[in-house]
Amino acid sequence: MKKAIVLVSGGMDSCVTAACALRDGYKLSFLHMNYGQLTEKRELEAFKNISEYYSINEKLIFDISHLNIIGGSCLTDESIITPNADLESDQIPISYVPFRNANILSAAVSWSEINNSEAIYIGAVEEDSSGYPDCRRSFFDSFEEVIKHGTKPETKVEIITPLINLSKKEIIKLGFSLNAPIHLTWSCYQNNDIPCMTCDSCALRKRGFDSAKIKDPILN
Amino acid sequence: MKKAIVLVSGGMDSCVTAACALRDGYKLSFLHMNYGQLTEKRELEAFKNISEYYSINEKLIFDISHLNIIGGSCLTDESIITPNADLESDQIPISYVPFRNANILSAAVSWSEINNSEAIYIGAVEEDSSGYPDCRRSFFDSFEEVIKHGTKPETKVEIITPLINLSKKEIIKLGFSLNAPIHLTWSCYQNNDIPCMTCDSCALRKRGFDSAKIKDPILN
Repeated sequence: MKKAIVLVSGGMDSCVTAACALRDGYKLSFLHMNYGQLTEKRELEAFKNISEYYSINEKLIFDISHLNIIGGSCLTDESIITPNADLESDQIPISYVPFRNANILSAAVSWSEINNSEAIYIGAVEEDSSGYPDCRRSFFDSFEEVIKHGTKPETKVEIITPLINLSKKEIIKLGFSLNAPIHLTWSCYQNNDIPCMTCDSCALRKRGFDSAKIKDPILN
Repeated sequence: MKKAIVLVSGGMDSCVTAACALRDGYKLSFLHMNYGQLTEKRELEAFKNISEYYSINEKLIFDISHLNIIGGSCLTDESIITPNADLESDQIPISYVPFRNANILSAAVSWSEINNSEAIYIGAVEEDSSGYPDCRRSFFDSFEEVIKHGTKPETKVEIITPLINLSKKEIIKLGFSLNAPIHLTWSCYQNNDIPCMTCDSCALRKRGFDSAKIKDPILN
């Protein structure tokens, strides 16, 4: 059975991405990255719950907290205030963690060379998102070229981004149609207990549920 | 003054690479990666000594020891015996650490977005080397494309590989001509005290010094 590594942060998008990988017929391995994000405790709990829901045997948690040492983002630096959402802005928001997805994908590709996965699934969203440069499909396309040049000849791994062109509304509908455990996910950038509802991530999630006319199961 | 991050493992090639970056007029920041390699203790000592030699103020040590968790290389897994050198083989040797340089470069690019470096220097050697896929210039060229697509618009960082087409003999001669502190470096893959002289890295170093007709300053 063909194998895939799914990058599972614990957020809604990565949860729906796992459901897509399962739909596509892969045996799943889950990879979670601790990069010193302020909500890591809650994200890790979500990761563990989603792993349990899908009965994942092969799962790893990697520590890339050099991204926390580097800082420069409100996700990794407590001294930077998380701003209220501005979903209309065309600026890259301060929640951007420099080149995060390259660090994450590199680690995933390293693992794929040893556990013989043919695919890496990542829940990046290009359209209905915060506008991070490392969430664009052009970034993933060029990363696939790097994999071709920088790995063993027998390594063939593709980067699959099933949500890349979907709106949050479409992601939510897809997730429910695939029975993804959205009730186990966590999206908030700044709280570990109750979603703040003011950060970019909460605002995007809320807009998605509102337009899908579905109640978010993590809200009372 | 334009800034560059130099990846300094503590080996001879990275030491000569630092000398090249200085020659090229950059203010240097040093970055050392601990990826759980078996000789990290000795490499870190070399890194610190080379940093001191060059009076580097801005230096960081990152832990990417998920490469050790993944394993699959004699550099990171004690249960895999380091083989005697076979410099004529066209196989990728067991010392290959899966996609290591992508992990290292990703971290360096993340740092460059915050410390405003314009260049990353890495002492990769394509010709006179062990044949690692992530030491080929084509790998670095494609990685530069990933940087263009995956970072902020204002980020402009190039990957400079001054040794990529040199032989070990040429690297040694270049290092001495630039007063690089080769006496402070460490190359052996398996020992932390006296070079084993049988691993690929020791064998490549010895062949280089022999053909340059220079005595290796780390040997008595």
